Amino acid sequence: MRVLSGIQPSGSLHFGNFFGMMQKMIDYQEQEDLFCFIANYHAMTSVSDGKALAKGTMEAAANFLALGLNPEKSTFWVQSDVPEVQELTWILSNFTPMGLLERCHSYKDKVAQGIKPNHGLFAYPVLMAADILLFQSDSVPVGKDQKQHLEVARDIAIKYNNEHGDVFTLPEPDIDDDVATVPGLDGRKMSKSYGNTIDLFLEEKALRKQIMRIVTDPTPIEEAKNPDSCNIFQIYRLFLNKQEVEELRQRYLTPGLRYGDVKQELFETARDFFAPYTEKRKEILADPERLRKILASGADKARYVANKTLRKVRKKGGLVY
Amino acid sequence: MRVLSGIQPSGSLHFGNFFGMMQKMIDYQEQEDLFCFIANYHAMTSVSDGKALAKGTMEAAANFLALGLNPEKSTFWVQSDVPEVQELTWILSNFTPMGLLERCHSYKDKVAQGIKPNHGLFAYPVLMAADILLFQSDSVPVGKDQKQHLEVARDIAIKYNNEHGDVFTLPEPDIDDDVATVPGLDGRKMSKSYGNTIDLFLEEKALRKQIMRIVTDPTPIEEAKNPDSCNIFQIYRLFLNKQEVEELRQRYLTPGLRYGDVKQELFETARDFFAPYTEKRKEILADPERLRKILASGADKARYVANKTLRKVRKKGGLVY
Repeated sequence: MRVLSGIQPSGSLHFGNFFGMMQKMIDYQEQEDLFCFIANYHAMTSVSDGKALAKGTMEAAANFLALGLNPEKSTFWVQSDVPEVQELTWILSNFTPMGLLERCHSYKDKVAQGIKPNHGLFAYPVLMAADILLFQSDSVPVGKDQKQHLEVARDIAIKYNNEHGDVFTLPEPDIDDDVATVPGLDGRKMSKSYGNTIDLFLEEKALRKQIMRIVTDPTPIEEAKNPDSCNIFQIYRLFLNKQEVEELRQRYLTPGLRYGDVKQELFETARDFFAPYTEKRKEILADPERLRKILASGADKARYVANKTLRKVRKKGGLVY
Repeated sequence: MRVLSGIQPSGSLHFGNFFGMMQKMIDYQEQEDLFCFIANYHAMTSVSDGKALAKGTMEAAANFLALGLNPEKSTFWVQSDVPEVQELTWILSNFTPMGLLERCHSYKDKVAQGIKPNHGLFAYPVLMAADILLFQSDSVPVGKDQKQHLEVARDIAIKYNNEHGDVFTLPEPDIDDDVATVPGLDGRKMSKSYGNTIDLFLEEKALRKQIMRIVTDPTPIEEAKNPDSCNIFQIYRLFLNKQEVEELRQRYLTPGLRYGDVKQELFETARDFFAPYTEKRKEILADPERLRKILASGADKARYVANKTLRKVRKKGGLVY
């Protein structure tokens, strides 16, 4: 089964990204035919600083590889290295009723927020459909906010297939409700926009500082504590197996626990857990030429698959004369 | 000066196309740096029959070459053979305010006619902007109906240049008010949609039949006639030099002229005028492989220029990492 996932290169990563999405996504490479790309075309709808985008692209690539993405087991590339996707976007545009795009929440929300939209933002779902359909993806892991866009991709594919035969695989959304919502420092969902993140790939000192800022309740040391309402516990458990979670729970229920001690333990655990990844990331970024070679070779693999689809579509559409 | 012109491959040609536009356009190759392409991507907004589009593309190419377009003196290609234009379309979409597209008459008119629009129709002006800007065109001959689209292209270029420096040449519209409006069989503007055309590249018999259908007034043979209100005269003059026009005018003013005779003369003149072109067209279409080679070599020339622009734009946008 081919699983496709694209991730925008903007911004750094936090625990929420890792435990909520990336870890699971990278795991697909073991059982499935994982296609994973860095969505730098999409990022252009919000990032106009070219230098920032280029830097973000290299870092995003390094993040994935450091966290375990194996370019031998998967197909991993930068979106703009397979520009064929833009040709498919145009072709699909002619099978995309305007109403379908006008109804997209993500666009309507931004307009409602007073953002003066560019055409890129409006056309975004067509490019996303092209990303998915070009590679004949069976399954696309998406958050709830992207579910509608996946439906747009399916609608376009159905419309196209009705006219030209079964050219495109109909993609299925893979919405995982089981994925734990990772709480942030203040207990709300960890999110960059809330400013409540614990970031990946930090230096020790900075990591400790963030963890020490986790908000706790004022239960005195000498009383038992409630693990289920404790932000430290909810974050810490992500690193623990079942038995370790149970042991920690017992310590909460036993009077005498100091939150400061648990934070220190969490810090050490997180540091040790991510240390090899952080080290790997540093190594990767120290050799940008090698990284570019890995990405170029991924683009070659992706392009081979892309052109199989595109050849059909060009022929059906009359671009081969 | 670089002059760019694109023509949709749909439909056959008539006298109005030739005298109203193509003749003048082909003449640009003598003095200017003419870039001329067959707009098959654009045609996809209205043509979904791939076979018809492919056939129309070959015929349109043969028409141009038969009528004198010289691929050595100009750059002549099929739009989809330089798919780079689609990548630029995406990049420019992020510099295209939605309002600019929403205000385009051609889109609004089609919606007003009750056509349920696809996104391709809406995004058409961005693709047209990319066509123009990719090749750093100085001048674009356009009909009045396309003037607004050229303004959109200029607006996008200005917005882009304001952010990233002078990357794009600002194109000037070249609206020729002198071009005679060619009247059709019934005196209205010759147009496929009026069904009043005299077509190019017809067999003799079919050509004569069309010309004999020109509508005339019922002035008796023995009276003088008004050349300025006569459809035959208005069409015939396109083939004549000044002196010949004057001689014909005198014959109209002299009683005794038979419209049937003038029609026969017009038929013979038109037949002889277009005979070498019709012959040439037949030869070209008889050797499709050679035609494809000419177009491939034109695409190579166009792509070379396209990539000079695209390299800059990709770098500025951060797609080069």
